[in-house]
Amino acid sequence: MKIIRTVKSAKKLTSHLRLKNKIIGFVPTMGYLHEGHLSLIKIAKKKSDIIFVSIFVNPLQFGPNEDFEKYPRDFKRDEKLCKKAGVDYIFYPKRKEVFPPGFAANVNVVKITEILEGAHRSGHFKGVTTVVLKLFNIIQPHIAVFGQKDAQQAAVITKMVNDLNINTKIIIAPTKREADGLAMSSRNVYLNNEQRKDASYLYKALEYCKESLTPPLSKGKGDYIDLERIKRQMYKIIDSRPSVTKIDYISFNEYETLMPVNSIKETGKNSKILVSLAVRFGKVRLIDNITVLIKK
Amino acid sequence: MKIIRTVKSAKKLTSHLRLKNKIIGFVPTMGYLHEGHLSLIKIAKKKSDIIFVSIFVNPLQFGPNEDFEKYPRDFKRDEKLCKKAGVDYIFYPKRKEVFPPGFAANVNVVKITEILEGAHRSGHFKGVTTVVLKLFNIIQPHIAVFGQKDAQQAAVITKMVNDLNINTKIIIAPTKREADGLAMSSRNVYLNNEQRKDASYLYKALEYCKESLTPPLSKGKGDYIDLERIKRQMYKIIDSRPSVTKIDYISFNEYETLMPVNSIKETGKNSKILVSLAVRFGKVRLIDNITVLIKK
Repeated sequence: MKIIRTVKSAKKLTSHLRLKNKIIGFVPTMGYLHEGHLSLIKIAKKKSDIIFVSIFVNPLQFGPNEDFEKYPRDFKRDEKLCKKAGVDYIFYPKRKEVFPPGFAANVNVVKITEILEGAHRSGHFKGVTTVVLKLFNIIQPHIAVFGQKDAQQAAVITKMVNDLNINTKIIIAPTKREADGLAMSSRNVYLNNEQRKDASYLYKALEYCKESLTPPLSKGKGDYIDLERIKRQMYKIIDSRPSVTKIDYISFNEYETLMPVNSIKETGKNSKILVSLAVRFGKVRLIDNITVLIKK
Repeated sequence: MKIIRTVKSAKKLTSHLRLKNKIIGFVPTMGYLHEGHLSLIKIAKKKSDIIFVSIFVNPLQFGPNEDFEKYPRDFKRDEKLCKKAGVDYIFYPKRKEVFPPGFAANVNVVKITEILEGAHRSGHFKGVTTVVLKLFNIIQPHIAVFGQKDAQQAAVITKMVNDLNINTKIIIAPTKREADGLAMSSRNVYLNNEQRKDASYLYKALEYCKESLTPPLSKGKGDYIDLERIKRQMYKIIDSRPSVTKIDYISFNEYETLMPVNSIKETGKNSKILVSLAVRFGKVRLIDNITVLIKK
């Protein structure tokens, strides 16, 4: 496994690999790797000849009051995990290598970025799409794997790739969870003991929702499912935990377009719904989601 | 020569050419080709194995009160000219092939796009960078040639390519002019006889400027050249023509960064200055520019 620190040397290598018809698989990360990241690497390995992982805490996707400075970093640990996972190259650039002084370009996707996380984290997705497009141009991957845990990010990047005709196939990998259901996240290390225990209730609320929407919904019955009632119950499940400070949102959206779903009646046959939420435990903000297939 | 109408078939072809290590040269155009475009093709041919020309009148780069609808189009004529010029492939997509319903992505470069043409044509450069990035992803060119006549466009695209790590080398080709100095442009067909005659004074004003700034500027002398006096004289030369309706701007800027140059004193040794202007003849708006090397 090799570590690459500059854009120039990465490009030289990936151009060479492309010419040799090696399939390049790519997992972009902000480091502090966990089982979730490793599952993305595993999926990428199955579909590629050469695996790149990037480790870069992207300043553009953090708001001024967010956790860029204290975001957990441990390159030595990440390096070991990547080696063990069979990664071929880690792209680990310095900040000024990616964003030199005078950097002035950006990539944006409108509408789909203005709701959910976008409504609570101004400029976040513009930062994500800008850095991901840059990384795609540097690594030149045939495939790139993202986690379903960041569901809106996955939808936004898929939309960017389609709209801008980018030559990379996006694969979305299922969320990895702890034994009690908590979605794995580098930010989980921020949680104290009480918060960590209470955080498992996010998944409990999502599971409650899934059960309420689980097929078979007998003929016509699905139309009368009351999403507002389900949502109220989910709020209750989460709000019952003492260390929860604020629920930013609980939301039902169409899976690909992220258009809000107000009633099951509106959805098509066999439509996929994204149920997502964002919850604050003090200064720690966690997100999670599930998808539900509505069979009518 | 072949004509390609879809993104899918273009990508299939260019991916194949890339694998075969063919150097792809690309000249993006809005059609209605003239000697200027042909000179770009000639330059691209010298540096590539396979030449692509795109012909697409990009709706995103026209303002609501601009000439998108009446912009001159003649594909049959363009086809003949490309064939004669030795083009291998014309990419000639329909509008909805490039911008399908629900298209929501954009690429933008800040600052450098907010002056000169950007100040007079809101959203113009965002439209340019968005379509050029898309075309680059579709054609996957090793090199792309743009005309110096659209000097700010050339600077903006160069900045986008650098900032977003795009794997295409940008070449800027000198402006082709008619016998009387008028810069070639597809929009010149809009001019009536009087306007056409008067339009040659744009270049006369630029030539006057070049002479006023021509080396050798004896030791220290350059510092005292009065740019405002030169600019006033250029306004006079152009304003003297009866069919001139409005001078949008005459401007001195650093060549690459487009930072305004207020005095020769400010510039470095051997710095390159862009002298650019935009002038309206009734509804017809023409731009032109020259570069001047300031030798101190």
